[in-house]
Amino acid sequence: MPLVQIKGISGVLTPEQKQDMIKKVTDAVLSVEGEGLRPVTWVMIEDVPSGHWGVGGDPVTTGQVRDMATAKQ
Amino acid sequence: MPLVQIKGISGVLTPEQKQDMIKKVTDAVLSVEGEGLRPVTWVMIEDVPSGHWGVGGDPVTTGQVRDMATAKQ
Amino acid sequence: MPLVQIKGISGVLTPEQKQDMIKKVTDAVLSVEGEGLRPVTWVMIEDVPSGHWGVGGDPVTTGQVRDMATAKQ
Amino acid sequence: MPLVQIKGISGVLTPEQKQDMIKKVTDAVLSVEGEGLRPVTWVMIEDVPSGHWGVGGDPVTTGQVRDMATAKQ
Amino acid sequence: MPLVQIKGISGVLTPEQKQDMIKKVTDAVLSVEGEGLRPVTWVMIEDVPSGHWGVGGDPVTTGQVRDMATAKQ
Amino acid sequence: MPLVQIKGISGVLTPEQKQDMIKKVTDAVLSVEGEGLRPVTWVMIEDVPSGHWGVGGDPVTTGQVRDMATAKQ
Repeated sequence: MPLVQIKGISGVLTPEQKQDMIKKVTDAVLSVEGEGLRPVTWVMIEDVPSGHWGVGGDPVTTGQVRDMATAKQ
Repeated sequence: MPLVQIKGISGVLTPEQKQDMIKKVTDAVLSVEGEGLRPVTWVMIEDVPSGHWGVGGDPVTTGQVRDMATAKQ
Repeated sequence: MPLVQIKGISGVLTPEQKQDMIKKVTDAVLSVEGEGLRPVTWVMIEDVPSGHWGVGGDPVTTGQVRDMATAKQ
Repeated sequence: MPLVQIKGISGVLTPEQKQDMIKKVTDAVLSVEGEGLRPVTWVMIEDVPSGHWGVGGDPVTTGQVRDMATAKQ
Repeated sequence: MPLVQIKGISGVLTPEQKQDMIKKVTDAVLSVEGEGLRPVTWVMIEDVPSGHWGVGGDPVTTGQVRDMATAKQ
Repeated sequence: MPLVQIKGISGVLTPEQKQDMIKKVTDAVLSVEGEGLRPVTWVMIEDVPSGHWGVGGDPVTTGQVRDMATAKQ
């Protein structure tokens, strides 16, 4: 019964990464909830256009998220 | 920048399981997105009251979800 | 696969009315989508506390919604 | 005051079916809430792209939903 | 920590107006919450296609919203 | 037609601050959209329980948000 909605900025993930995300998040959720709920576990990914998502008032772009994602820790 | 909203029926998970869920789903998301986004990865859990969530028109209860979760595969 | 989320102000509907709402909205959705999707049609009802929902800047209360609902047309 | 958000996979419904959905779901909601709330009943339909919605970890496509919708009962 | 999600009908606001919206809503939220939360204040704008948003059962179009927005008070 | 949903951690804002938030965010939205849309501008505030909202995998509590909100800049 868990419903998982994931929002990110469009253009950051490839279609393959989105499929991978759906699979891995489903597995993570079921490792806590119990495998019996797999048939009723929904995970959806929704893209927000570049520039439509502000942090502290400043819109964030696809390029900025990509740079953050791959920054050296 | 990923935002993850998880909805489930209230009373199914303990507070400890919810903390575990937040941690595991965050890790799953970042394994795809890249660890650089950890500080801007939000995961929130929202409970829907027992009986407020219908599947095919029939409300589902906390007890039914618990039974499904632990059913033998 | 349709997911329906209904938000209303808490205290307006009884538990019986919420069950009725889930049933009737599910039927309405499936009359358009096709009955084959019944097992994957989810309808959830979420209450927003009285005073937490503003229209034009003014918070609306449970009592005001009840009055509107039963007003003569 | 009811707010209804309906999500489905894009490409399943035609624009005419979406208008029909908005009308029928509004009527279903008001049959429970009371007709007095019609002017403040909002129904919105949001499409999720094919492949962005996973069930049990497997992405669902527009074609699969269409097949299910029209399957013999 | 506040998360703000704004939905409107697509085609009503220009990209510049959306940036202005993000900035002004962030400032409004922080004037109540306290400036210390600025780095964790997210505001996102999501467009709903013209005709996908019904009021009282009737779909609203981009043109109608524009007319209302600029109507004399 | 704008719909604004604000989520925060419960216990941070008083009822008076929530009313103030609804008013100020409505005004901010209409300063961009145009005053003609005031009657169809909805702002709702939804609380997420303390500990149900994780940042980077760590649940955030009401106390931590309060401390951040009032921290010296």
